[in-house]
Amino acid sequence: MLSLPANWAFRGGVRCWRHRAVLRGALKAPDVNGVCRYSTPIRGGVAGMEDILARVVAPLPTYETRDKYPPPPESNSLEFMHFYAGLEKEEKLGFLTKLSHDFGVDHKGISELALRLLDAQLRDLATILQVEDRLRYGLTPRYKQLLNHISRVEGGVKFLVDLRADVLEMISSKASETPQIRDLNGTLKSLLSEWFSVGLLRLERITWQSPCDILQRISQYEAVHPVRNWTDLKRRVGPYRRCYAFTHAAMPGEPLVVLHVALTEDISDNIQSIVREFATLDSEEDVNKINAAIFYSISSTQAGLQGVELGNYLIKRVVRELQSEFPHMAQFSSLSPIPGFSSWLQGLLGQCKKEGRGSDLLSEQEWEQVEQAVDSAPGPAAIEALRKLIATGEWTRSERLTRVLEPVLMRLCAWYLYGEKRRGYALNPVANFHLQNGATMWRLNWSADTSPRGVANSCGIMVNYRYFLNETSKNSALYLQNKVISASEQLVGLVSQFQKSSKL
Amino acid sequence: MLSLPANWAFRGGVRCWRHRAVLRGALKAPDVNGVCRYSTPIRGGVAGMEDILARVVAPLPTYETRDKYPPPPESNSLEFMHFYAGLEKEEKLGFLTKLSHDFGVDHKGISELALRLLDAQLRDLATILQVEDRLRYGLTPRYKQLLNHISRVEGGVKFLVDLRADVLEMISSKASETPQIRDLNGTLKSLLSEWFSVGLLRLERITWQSPCDILQRISQYEAVHPVRNWTDLKRRVGPYRRCYAFTHAAMPGEPLVVLHVALTEDISDNIQSIVREFATLDSEEDVNKINAAIFYSISSTQAGLQGVELGNYLIKRVVRELQSEFPHMAQFSSLSPIPGFSSWLQGLLGQCKKEGRGSDLLSEQEWEQVEQAVDSAPGPAAIEALRKLIATGEWTRSERLTRVLEPVLMRLCAWYLYGEKRRGYALNPVANFHLQNGATMWRLNWSADTSPRGVANSCGIMVNYRYFLNETSKNSALYLQNKVISASEQLVGLVSQFQKSSKL
Amino acid sequence: MLSLPANWAFRGGVRCWRHRAVLRGALKAPDVNGVCRYSTPIRGGVAGMEDILARVVAPLPTYETRDKYPPPPESNSLEFMHFYAGLEKEEKLGFLTKLSHDFGVDHKGISELALRLLDAQLRDLATILQVEDRLRYGLTPRYKQLLNHISRVEGGVKFLVDLRADVLEMISSKASETPQIRDLNGTLKSLLSEWFSVGLLRLERITWQSPCDILQRISQYEAVHPVRNWTDLKRRVGPYRRCYAFTHAAMPGEPLVVLHVALTEDISDNIQSIVREFATLDSEEDVNKINAAIFYSISSTQAGLQGVELGNYLIKRVVRELQSEFPHMAQFSSLSPIPGFSSWLQGLLGQCKKEGRGSDLLSEQEWEQVEQAVDSAPGPAAIEALRKLIATGEWTRSERLTRVLEPVLMRLCAWYLYGEKRRGYALNPVANFHLQNGATMWRLNWSADTSPRGVANSCGIMVNYRYFLNETSKNSALYLQNKVISASEQLVGLVSQFQKSSKL
Amino acid sequence: MLSLPANWAFRGGVRCWRHRAVLRGALKAPDVNGVCRYSTPIRGGVAGMEDILARVVAPLPTYETRDKYPPPPESNSLEFMHFYAGLEKEEKLGFLTKLSHDFGVDHKGISELALRLLDAQLRDLATILQVEDRLRYGLTPRYKQLLNHISRVEGGVKFLVDLRADVLEMISSKASETPQIRDLNGTLKSLLSEWFSVGLLRLERITWQSPCDILQRISQYEAVHPVRNWTDLKRRVGPYRRCYAFTHAAMPGEPLVVLHVALTEDISDNIQSIVREFATLDSEEDVNKINAAIFYSISSTQAGLQGVELGNYLIKRVVRELQSEFPHMAQFSSLSPIPGFSSWLQGLLGQCKKEGRGSDLLSEQEWEQVEQAVDSAPGPAAIEALRKLIATGEWTRSERLTRVLEPVLMRLCAWYLYGEKRRGYALNPVANFHLQNGATMWRLNWSADTSPRGVANSCGIMVNYRYFLNETSKNSALYLQNKVISASEQLVGLVSQFQKSSKL
Repeated sequence: MLSLPANWAFRGGVRCWRHRAVLRGALKAPDVNGVCRYSTPIRGGVAGMEDILARVVAPLPTYETRDKYPPPPESNSLEFMHFYAGLEKEEKLGFLTKLSHDFGVDHKGISELALRLLDAQLRDLATILQVEDRLRYGLTPRYKQLLNHISRVEGGVKFLVDLRADVLEMISSKASETPQIRDLNGTLKSLLSEWFSVGLLRLERITWQSPCDILQRISQYEAVHPVRNWTDLKRRVGPYRRCYAFTHAAMPGEPLVVLHVALTEDISDNIQSIVREFATLDSEEDVNKINAAIFYSISSTQAGLQGVELGNYLIKRVVRELQSEFPHMAQFSSLSPIPGFSSWLQGLLGQCKKEGRGSDLLSEQEWEQVEQAVDSAPGPAAIEALRKLIATGEWTRSERLTRVLEPVLMRLCAWYLYGEKRRGYALNPVANFHLQNGATMWRLNWSADTSPRGVANSCGIMVNYRYFLNETSKNSALYLQNKVISASEQLVGLVSQFQKSSKL
Repeated sequence: MLSLPANWAFRGGVRCWRHRAVLRGALKAPDVNGVCRYSTPIRGGVAGMEDILARVVAPLPTYETRDKYPPPPESNSLEFMHFYAGLEKEEKLGFLTKLSHDFGVDHKGISELALRLLDAQLRDLATILQVEDRLRYGLTPRYKQLLNHISRVEGGVKFLVDLRADVLEMISSKASETPQIRDLNGTLKSLLSEWFSVGLLRLERITWQSPCDILQRISQYEAVHPVRNWTDLKRRVGPYRRCYAFTHAAMPGEPLVVLHVALTEDISDNIQSIVREFATLDSEEDVNKINAAIFYSISSTQAGLQGVELGNYLIKRVVRELQSEFPHMAQFSSLSPIPGFSSWLQGLLGQCKKEGRGSDLLSEQEWEQVEQAVDSAPGPAAIEALRKLIATGEWTRSERLTRVLEPVLMRLCAWYLYGEKRRGYALNPVANFHLQNGATMWRLNWSADTSPRGVANSCGIMVNYRYFLNETSKNSALYLQNKVISASEQLVGLVSQFQKSSKL
Repeated sequence: MLSLPANWAFRGGVRCWRHRAVLRGALKAPDVNGVCRYSTPIRGGVAGMEDILARVVAPLPTYETRDKYPPPPESNSLEFMHFYAGLEKEEKLGFLTKLSHDFGVDHKGISELALRLLDAQLRDLATILQVEDRLRYGLTPRYKQLLNHISRVEGGVKFLVDLRADVLEMISSKASETPQIRDLNGTLKSLLSEWFSVGLLRLERITWQSPCDILQRISQYEAVHPVRNWTDLKRRVGPYRRCYAFTHAAMPGEPLVVLHVALTEDISDNIQSIVREFATLDSEEDVNKINAAIFYSISSTQAGLQGVELGNYLIKRVVRELQSEFPHMAQFSSLSPIPGFSSWLQGLLGQCKKEGRGSDLLSEQEWEQVEQAVDSAPGPAAIEALRKLIATGEWTRSERLTRVLEPVLMRLCAWYLYGEKRRGYALNPVANFHLQNGATMWRLNWSADTSPRGVANSCGIMVNYRYFLNETSKNSALYLQNKVISASEQLVGLVSQFQKSSKL
Repeated sequence: MLSLPANWAFRGGVRCWRHRAVLRGALKAPDVNGVCRYSTPIRGGVAGMEDILARVVAPLPTYETRDKYPPPPESNSLEFMHFYAGLEKEEKLGFLTKLSHDFGVDHKGISELALRLLDAQLRDLATILQVEDRLRYGLTPRYKQLLNHISRVEGGVKFLVDLRADVLEMISSKASETPQIRDLNGTLKSLLSEWFSVGLLRLERITWQSPCDILQRISQYEAVHPVRNWTDLKRRVGPYRRCYAFTHAAMPGEPLVVLHVALTEDISDNIQSIVREFATLDSEEDVNKINAAIFYSISSTQAGLQGVELGNYLIKRVVRELQSEFPHMAQFSSLSPIPGFSSWLQGLLGQCKKEGRGSDLLSEQEWEQVEQAVDSAPGPAAIEALRKLIATGEWTRSERLTRVLEPVLMRLCAWYLYGEKRRGYALNPVANFHLQNGATMWRLNWSADTSPRGVANSCGIMVNYRYFLNETSKNSALYLQNKVISASEQLVGLVSQFQKSSKL
């Protein structure tokens, strides 16, 4: 039985209803002027796949006739979309593999063009340019045309976003990754990048007057500090808060990336003061108390838009929006979680215990304090005790332990953020995001997220990535090109404390 | 003194005003966080051009680091836009030439990649795919990045549309055409095609309730049957009329392509009944009298979007819109002008006179009637007399002549539309447009446009291109690929009448 | 300390903020062109009241100069509103009493006019008409002008709606009722009736795309079948449901009366099938399954608009709306609760027990069945047992009892609805509302609301008031003028069953 | 044959169409649930009138049953509206006369109540209040209910506005004026005043982005300085201009009163600088050059809203709007025409000539200069010459005459505005309007409107009524109650110059 994916909605009146009827029943193929003709049976295993692909993925016209081809009937796109939507996960995998392998670039043609290009080198530039253009055209995968046509039917862009999410999953699962699948991903990404270019995005401020539908989505998408209920949500769009999203004409009502901002007197060092405690919902903003904008949550909502830069642009647009609303506002900063710190730390403690290198992490004196506090023997036993305390979050219940561990965890965390790398860039993904944007790693905040989640993830520590607007361009380039991290004195100080003690 | 082009509008509040102040005064360069920094002097002849291009057109990152480059500051794009806007026409020409010559593809790099690709043929497919991807990347002109960034600033897309209009003018003027300029045009066209993909366009119905601004533009853009005044305009959006346009999120308030439709009982054979005579403005539509939709005018408004398919899609969308409003509507047809017919005919007459081949065009009997009617000697004198009558439109004043000429002009016109070709496709651009869309050349209408303009252009003849919705796909493919024209019996009959007499 | 009432919102920009600052601080009185001048101290007990009333409630100009008075400065209205908002409940009572007593009609003037009118009887009609007009003018209470002016400032209409709610509360509490207060109420009601005339109301359909703010209000106002959570709310605006509200330009975003409709195949006999069980939220409506519109909840939201007819008009507008959406829809009916039935029944049982008239309610045989089922002695004990069962809802747990009681409760309920009167009209307020609108008491539904609330209120019985559109005008007039209730055969049958057994 | 009035538009879908069909054809009476039942024949002379009035103007319910009457079916209102719309002008007159005479107040009942009231004087206040309330109710004309119901159907409010325009015309024509018609007018005015209360009006700024429909109306309504073409109109909503209107929910898209404002550096002394000469249309506003707001045109559009204060409120709302847009703006003034000055002056000259009192107007020296300039004999001949010069506007062609006449015309004009009265208030209606609003007669401007119209109306003189925001309340009260005109030194000076010479 065929069913439409939940995320795939046709819009429009009578026509759409007809489509659906057809799609559901698959009984007959009404001919509404070429708009929706389906051949039955829609599904028929591998043979069906080949059939359908051969029919809907038209061959690339020759270079000479490339402008002489009419767009295929919309029904081609709809058939492809519908067929794909009806596949099981395994079948999708096979389908995409077949698509990418058999309907990509004509390698033989390309190598011939490469030869012609080398010949042409001896001749005039005009010839070179022409062969280059043929080459460029020839490097278009055959399926790219289809993807283009799909983008034109209703719901088509959203379909492709979700299709790419499937492709990315295939790639990340490794098993089904192939060079061709990577090519398909590259093609999809470049198409989506064009369509989701910033010039085509719309900034929307989300308020309590926004459609319920959007607010519910905002609530569902909020991954950083989950929205607990509608009152909580109302606060996040209420006074001293701003919530912005980018939307796109081809996916109306769907926020693509969402930024939550708190308007504060000073740069916040604590998330509970933002998402829990605050003046009554009905209070009015006092503009004199608004000096800083704290980005306390940014969420991308579309897996299929990975690598299509949106968050960075959203932050920049919002900064401008806020500057226009509050001309005197001068402080812009995130208050960010540090996912992965606790598990990194536990891995480290496990390793140190095994290798007997506990002194790399804590000084002798610190170990003594820990041992006393937990009544443990020194050495591996103490390391293990500490590991457990971290794992369970039990340490937060003891004031003494908390006092002992603060300097230790702070310098370890500073190192985790600043010193741990992946291909030369910050290992921590949130750090990497803000550093790419040109932010400065500005302040580590102790006891900043005391929720169970915050303690479990990062021992309650949070970090501010601050946006000095005059420096973001420079910082961004330095980080991306030279892997240089801009960091404050506090951060650098903590890191050097770590380095003194550690031999890591 | 610099001034902004009329068609280039910044939007937004304070920020934009600041920009403008800067742009106008060019006095100093305020640093609003990297948003608008200008070096002075902005203009400085060729040296200035080179400077600015070298600075704002960043080199293409290497393939490996292509994802490691932050977007350049928006000020780069603004600087480019502003600099260009300040140039005189001649300077623009030089500027675009320089841009396309010096900031295009790295030909040496490409030829090396071509070599590597040929080497790779001996190896595995994965290697081939990778070299192909490098090649694809390498074939990106350096300026393409800049164009992409420009599309992201406010007014950027419109700037690029207008830039392409300049490029097209250079190409059509031949003098300044170069292979590189053609490459630049190709790059612009492919970018614009992505951004103006149908999925991103919005269909708007224009009514008397639409903003005055839009109605004024609609009025200005109407090239087919010029709008005479606001009352005339009001009628064109009033009862028994529809006016639709595509707009685009990046160019709000700017209709890109406009379609005027008349709702009639039968397929119209006369344009004056549509644009002049009609029931009072305040009458209400009687749905029972609406059986046919007549597309009586379609205008593209943006020279820079030449070759970006919009009109075809607009007609299809409007058909669906009308079908949903009038479910029983079954007749869709254009009522189209035949620009060029009169001048083609005069050329023909001139040639026949020179070559003494008058009998190719009119039968002996017909010539006699003409000679009598105009009191002329036979032979060249008669041909010349006829030529003059056509040129001046004088023939319409004589009922007798009109009677004589009707069959003659009808069969000549049928041939002009059906038989005259350019590279195998219909010479007449309107015919070519509708045939590409899959319409059928359906009916030639005598005395269909009795305005001076109509008589001057096409001896008052107009033609219906009819859209049989079940056949447009097939017709379109046959025409584009096999150059086959779908035509009605009336048309084919007139053509064969012509062919019988003519030895052309 | 002064604080604004939660329901009193100023709108607009800078100006409002200034007002608020003034209102809060009451420190100084900025003179923004007469717009907001306050004398301090704002509050000062009874003396303050008299002062303020004397100042802001201008005397009625003489008849001759009535058009020669400029509107008072807006600050008068604002001062009154603010002063009132700052009062405690007791003070409000005193304030309104003073307002209505001292600033009403000039009785002496009126009696003089009455005399003049009697004199005039002897003279011409023109004189009579003129004295009548003077009388009409003279009967305007002095405070009416102020109320009129208040309606013109932002939030003024809402202020008056709430003021009337206070007045109504005073009247219903009896203690503070005076003829003058009743006059004030009458004046307010007639003003509000003008402003909330149907021509000035806007019908809004509420959907999941409506502002969250409105949906939250809808949720809060729903008194009939309380909304449990946002999912529940989403269903009530989802497929097969409609939710409509009247709003008013002077109170934007505030639904005044809300109607919930279910679209069903047949006239519903059960509320749980509407508010609990239903197809998935994402299902699409099948227009072929929609034959009936069930009004399952109607709520007025503004206490101060009591007696201003809105619900009746809303139902009529919605019927038209639905007819236009579903031209074939022919069944319109409420599915209504029967509040008060259980408590009426218990009162009745108590009385019967006391008076030993149990046989008035149940037949001998029925009493036997009850006695068996509850294992009780006959007579008062059985009555008491039954009363308790009803009070606790315990009877619903026994299938046997349920079977026994169904006919009993049904005929008692029919009588309660049809036979119990207050001043000749139906005692039950919901019945009275629908009968006034011209509906027919159509069907009593057993086991129609099995929620604890439904069982407690009306033994789970609900009733359909059906709207036969051709008859509502006639029914309405018959009911209002002659107190005739239109009822179906089922209802009439149940009533006569009751009457046979009962000697009530 | 019946036809709908142009200004009477039904809205909505199918239902309305049905109505119209019925109204047009008057063939049969479809029963769409009581919504539109018409008895035929609709028209039948006086008998028809009486029939229809008797049927649709329901009797006033008794005081006791006043809340027990359901609203009559909407068809009553529609029938009345339609019947009236189909009448010829003469018939309308008869119809309104009948309505106002036969369906007004029950005079007998009123005189009885007056008697009861006098009796009640001896008793308690409660009784008095009750009889007063009965009196108040009894003074409601029977037709008032119908008018109320009409306001509730679509287009009903507009119908009543136009009905009142007819009533006003009857009154001003005197012939058909009766005390009852004046009562009808009073009733309509008080109803309209409630519905068009400022709290229910919406301020709209009209721009070039506003619907064409509204801009066309704005253009048609502009009576002060007629809009010449659409370019002219575009300027009036372009940079340095503002155009505001009040609209009403019950008459959407219909501007009720329109205010045109120019934003200038100083208070303008010349209208051509506003409506003719100005910077290009595309220029941007320089906020630094905006110090003053000049109200250069205010037009009421609905004759039927005469006496319902709108213009005054519009000016006040616009002032606030401008203050919020330009916080530093401190100068608000009209630049007003002086209609009637020239004709008043000619009347005066005619009289002086007759009475030989030329020296009342011009000093001896001035007469001499005039005589020289026009080469005329002194005395009556000179007066007549001057009168002719004024009548033809010829004087403006002679620089010498212009120089001579400037002081003369200025002081005469000052007197005309300041000294000429009607019932104690300024004779000039524009002066009266602004003085009622509390403006100050601030500056007389020579050569301020050099258009033929300006010269013909007021010898090219215009006047600024300036709004000193702190004083408007006070000024308004002084003027309305004490007939005191607030005037500037310039004005007062000119007036006293006039008074010195004149013995008028």
